[in-house]
Amino acid sequence: MKVELIAVGTEMTTGQNLDTNSQWLSRQLAEIGIPVAFHTTVADNMADNVAVFSLAAQRSDLVISTGGLGPTQDDLTREVLAAVIGVKLVEDPMSLAQIQEMFARRGRVMPERNRVQALIPAGAEAIPNSCGTAPGIWAQAARAILIALPGVPSEMHRMFTEHVRPRLLRLGVGGGVFIQRKINTLGAGESVIEEKVADLTRRGHVPEVGITVSDAVVSLRILARAGSLAEAQAQIAPVEATIRARLGDFVYGIDDEEIQDVVVRLMHQTTKTVATAESVTGGLVAHRICLVPGASDFFAGGVVSYTDEVKARELGVPHELLRQYGAVSEPVAQAMAEGVRARFGTDVGVATTGYAGPTGGTDDNPVGTVYIAIAHAQGTAVTRYGWIGTRAEVMNRTAKLALNALRLHLMKS
Amino acid sequence: MKVELIAVGTEMTTGQNLDTNSQWLSRQLAEIGIPVAFHTTVADNMADNVAVFSLAAQRSDLVISTGGLGPTQDDLTREVLAAVIGVKLVEDPMSLAQIQEMFARRGRVMPERNRVQALIPAGAEAIPNSCGTAPGIWAQAARAILIALPGVPSEMHRMFTEHVRPRLLRLGVGGGVFIQRKINTLGAGESVIEEKVADLTRRGHVPEVGITVSDAVVSLRILARAGSLAEAQAQIAPVEATIRARLGDFVYGIDDEEIQDVVVRLMHQTTKTVATAESVTGGLVAHRICLVPGASDFFAGGVVSYTDEVKARELGVPHELLRQYGAVSEPVAQAMAEGVRARFGTDVGVATTGYAGPTGGTDDNPVGTVYIAIAHAQGTAVTRYGWIGTRAEVMNRTAKLALNALRLHLMKS
Repeated sequence: MKVELIAVGTEMTTGQNLDTNSQWLSRQLAEIGIPVAFHTTVADNMADNVAVFSLAAQRSDLVISTGGLGPTQDDLTREVLAAVIGVKLVEDPMSLAQIQEMFARRGRVMPERNRVQALIPAGAEAIPNSCGTAPGIWAQAARAILIALPGVPSEMHRMFTEHVRPRLLRLGVGGGVFIQRKINTLGAGESVIEEKVADLTRRGHVPEVGITVSDAVVSLRILARAGSLAEAQAQIAPVEATIRARLGDFVYGIDDEEIQDVVVRLMHQTTKTVATAESVTGGLVAHRICLVPGASDFFAGGVVSYTDEVKARELGVPHELLRQYGAVSEPVAQAMAEGVRARFGTDVGVATTGYAGPTGGTDDNPVGTVYIAIAHAQGTAVTRYGWIGTRAEVMNRTAKLALNALRLHLMKS
Repeated sequence: MKVELIAVGTEMTTGQNLDTNSQWLSRQLAEIGIPVAFHTTVADNMADNVAVFSLAAQRSDLVISTGGLGPTQDDLTREVLAAVIGVKLVEDPMSLAQIQEMFARRGRVMPERNRVQALIPAGAEAIPNSCGTAPGIWAQAARAILIALPGVPSEMHRMFTEHVRPRLLRLGVGGGVFIQRKINTLGAGESVIEEKVADLTRRGHVPEVGITVSDAVVSLRILARAGSLAEAQAQIAPVEATIRARLGDFVYGIDDEEIQDVVVRLMHQTTKTVATAESVTGGLVAHRICLVPGASDFFAGGVVSYTDEVKARELGVPHELLRQYGAVSEPVAQAMAEGVRARFGTDVGVATTGYAGPTGGTDDNPVGTVYIAIAHAQGTAVTRYGWIGTRAEVMNRTAKLALNALRLHLMKS
């Protein structure tokens, strides 16, 4: 069963707008067990539209398009469908009545140009639009069920939910469910993670397992398709268990969980208080913690010590350490973490120092080098990382790994 | 001339992620006069990828794909291109060397897995990737120039700008230009800005002027289309002048300029030093300043004072102020700004305090209330804002407006 989505509109092929309709439809279809193979976006151009819709009608079993149903001259979808199916456009009295009614409710008479919105290909059916003037179209073309919906998201969402979704289910299209589970890791690179689960990510594995990377976070996505939610979950559970067993502490959370959500939860569970001393991240570690409601219960605050002078005065980093090793060094990272812990009287002190670039750095510590320190009652652990990336990426990845180091420490507490 | 973009990845056909790469490429191509006819998104599936790329190579003159070049088994684009062109994959020594170098710079040995990233179709060329391990591919297939770029936005942007764009221009692909000028404002709402430029934003105005809003920043976008860059710029210049004249100090920057870029530039111009005291923004003001290279020359650092205790101890906010007015109040914001200015010995102190929500707040100061204070030699100015938004939105908008308050102060210096 091949399913394809078509988004019509020059505002998307020029990059002015993003095609969020296809994303929304993909999620909706996935929930009823219909996986989508293609998204196509096409400009408001007759020839290109006919080509795209004809191809879709030949290669797919279900095609849902959004956009091109308005009253203006660049709204081509009605004509395109008629051309692809090879029939004429006819006026649908029900639709015309609804459009006139829509204007009447706003105390207005329907402008003549809106009359074209009541046209549908001969033999097709109109899909009522309860909150707009553009009815949708349900037609059969070549091997495909061809469904055209308006591009206005609120109207499209409602028409899909009220009319298209139930009818697809009645037809037994797809059926079953298609669910995802995302397992998020920090602390290992994509290839390291991949090597540990190579047998699961190989093509044809059921359920399908994919890997995606986003700013230091490597995520494994388990996609299960089954007749029922219970079956799909039963497919995912053992694979998730295997992945967790193999990746151990690299796994910090699931689905949309961010590292700071996990850290703040652990702060509450362990009742450990935390303070931050940030150089290279410039406040991002503290900010991420503060993004989580309730963070203030155990997060005292922190110091952004961007200059050596502030490191010495505010955090008590010995001047000779700064002179001897430089601000970007293991001893200074350690002194910063211990300094902020002492000053704020917290259980844990977190520190970051490094070269975010684009300039700076030394032969031993080139741009991208960062040190992360975690100070606690039993001692202080410092980790060194070497990033390659933009200034913002270095800061963002460093903040996430500092929070991950904090997570690993709190888990041991 | 037909141009087509292909985004590869199941994370998009399932609706998990949006295809922002095709949007970015569409804008970049538009700027050099290359209109895009189609976007196609395809899942990580060999047969579908081969079908999509073959079709593209037949119907289009230029095809640019993103994604599928990673080291893992679901990265298929290399094999897909070889199949579509009808050649074998061969190892590109240059690319292999670059990938090994990339790991060496991080003090690591290249995992065997990554070796596949050096494979390109026989007869094709590798496009160097200076900030990642996946080289791109430049090939000829059927009638099309076929360019494959990695899906990681930062790498893809850089490779397009450094290698693909210049080469397309040398080849004389495209013609005519379509440029945009964005004028960014802070401090006034969308409707206030719109009233001042209503005559320019009306439909049919040439050049076209649009308004977009993103987290407190209201931007006016001028779109000009012409035969040459000079003509397009000539269309934009007078309209930009009019907008600047009408909006005055609300305008902080153009195009992709962020408020912190402007602030750090003003810090250098005025040689004024700055320190921050953050409660509600939790370090975001400091972090935004630190995102700008060279910030450390005039940014001393700051304190994240999330609790009353820290406000009192670290910033010298009098306990009775906190008792009498509460932490979210004009007097406390003022005391925080003056306290951090005194403690760090800077020319300016910036402070934020407020209720980010979702819970907290009082009748007088409900969730969304924030105070921003700027302390300097001549005195301290405090502004109050009432936001309606999520916790992250309140923090983000407050940080931008604190930086805007700093900008307005530095402009007067």
